[in-house]
Amino acid sequence: MAIALIIPDRKLDDLQLRLQHALPDTRIEIWPHLSEPDAITFAVLWKQPAHVVAALPNLTALQSFGAGVDGILADDTLPTLPLARIVDPALTAAMLQYLSGIESYYRLRLDRFARQQQQQRWQPKSPRRLTTCCVLGLGELGTAAAVHFQQLGYQVTGWARTAKNVPHVQCYAGEDELPAALANADIVICLLPLTPTTDNLINAKVFAMMKPGVIFVNVARGAIVDDAALLAALDSGQVQAACLDVFRQEPLPSEHRFWSHPAIFITPHISAVTQVATVVAQIAENYRRSQQGLPLYNQVDLVRGY
Amino acid sequence: MAIALIIPDRKLDDLQLRLQHALPDTRIEIWPHLSEPDAITFAVLWKQPAHVVAALPNLTALQSFGAGVDGILADDTLPTLPLARIVDPALTAAMLQYLSGIESYYRLRLDRFARQQQQQRWQPKSPRRLTTCCVLGLGELGTAAAVHFQQLGYQVTGWARTAKNVPHVQCYAGEDELPAALANADIVICLLPLTPTTDNLINAKVFAMMKPGVIFVNVARGAIVDDAALLAALDSGQVQAACLDVFRQEPLPSEHRFWSHPAIFITPHISAVTQVATVVAQIAENYRRSQQGLPLYNQVDLVRGY
Repeated sequence: MAIALIIPDRKLDDLQLRLQHALPDTRIEIWPHLSEPDAITFAVLWKQPAHVVAALPNLTALQSFGAGVDGILADDTLPTLPLARIVDPALTAAMLQYLSGIESYYRLRLDRFARQQQQQRWQPKSPRRLTTCCVLGLGELGTAAAVHFQQLGYQVTGWARTAKNVPHVQCYAGEDELPAALANADIVICLLPLTPTTDNLINAKVFAMMKPGVIFVNVARGAIVDDAALLAALDSGQVQAACLDVFRQEPLPSEHRFWSHPAIFITPHISAVTQVATVVAQIAENYRRSQQGLPLYNQVDLVRGY
Repeated sequence: MAIALIIPDRKLDDLQLRLQHALPDTRIEIWPHLSEPDAITFAVLWKQPAHVVAALPNLTALQSFGAGVDGILADDTLPTLPLARIVDPALTAAMLQYLSGIESYYRLRLDRFARQQQQQRWQPKSPRRLTTCCVLGLGELGTAAAVHFQQLGYQVTGWARTAKNVPHVQCYAGEDELPAALANADIVICLLPLTPTTDNLINAKVFAMMKPGVIFVNVARGAIVDDAALLAALDSGQVQAACLDVFRQEPLPSEHRFWSHPAIFITPHISAVTQVATVVAQIAENYRRSQQGLPLYNQVDLVRGY
């Protein structure tokens, strides 16, 4: 029995070493160098190429290397097997630190002062009054973000596909209730999963539902946002500023208009990065459970896609 | 009896109106339009020109419009009278919000990502590990900042002219102990008062005492820092980045090298601005106390200069 790490374009020596340490009796192999494909019973995946997983005949379970699974489910050839994702408290803490920093950045108008510095312009201005916030997506990270902003003193609305209950957060569900969730928010934070339903969900129509002058933050997946609609909303002033950590194509191509738009702040997908140290234990535990025929921890619903 | 507001280059209608409301029986006049100079017994000051205060013969007390008094004491012709300053909890809260935002800004490397965006460069990097902080100056704001960073999880040192005691903060005092206070700090925050002793205090020798790669934040007064020494320390990498909210001359002249230095972030003196609404009560109360011959609240020691 062996585990395959199928994660292209990433140095995996450290992950391999740590997993080997956690599972001393199991062979840990790095794709494409699989010595005995028939021996692989468990695979750790991230944006794997098509047909690679399908070619392993004795797999019993799959494990995403991160919190999202959209890059895994994009593989049409993926066999129907139990698939787990990482639910990492350290990941949640990192996301909240990112969002706190971005909230301060806009509240203190650091975006404006950075532009003024480029123009040698001295123009003091008191902080923005930001009091309302809408979190799109109420999964692990979205719920944590909604609670966090509520604790910062914000009036928070949340929106998800299905009805949720989060203390002190006004929750809305389904397409019909999206306008009500968005209408009063000074800041909108996207933490939705990327699924066929959310692909391009935030389009011109949805930007028009937001409060004029809203600040938009995307820390979920780039493809959830219609790029051209966001640019148009920024140019019209409907959206005052956007902080984007995720993009339809990553790295963001150098010719993309996002790079040079004065109202966009770009961070290179750093808001919550899986730390090898903290996820090794979860991978090892799910491997053991798969060997014992137990359900995986943090298993994904393949029909919903998250 | 009347109060004079001697605050050049600022619209004072709102302050006058609110003070009038708080003190309905007292005339509130705005310099230079003083109808009866002999009737002025109390003056509210901010960067007043020389000789103006000295020309008012019946003053009994002076009130700074802000937390600092250096701009008032710079007037060599100032008569020796009780002088009070503003101690405003809202000011302290605003300062802590500013410092929290700046801490996040550097921890998340938003300075670096902003530069990368200008170059269309995608280069993810995990947050800076910032764990130690030194606060220079342990007055109202410095003490609050030291406690705040300690609560954020930092190991904090503090430094002041005289020995202080702040819970969980390693306090140092006097010139001899400045190297020990600075030596291990990832972030140094200047919250000293500007006095003849602190003028140019942070010079090449003091930057050399800091940990290589330190982040330096000045939210006190620009003249405490030797501008050329800071630029040299940034160019050599001794100081990794500087966030400056205060300057020797404000507005910062458009030809100043600070504007274009890639490792300097400039905010236009916005870290803690006196809000008219919150200080009117303190001014009115000190006026009443001066009329009754009582000591002022938050009176400044004229010898120390703060």
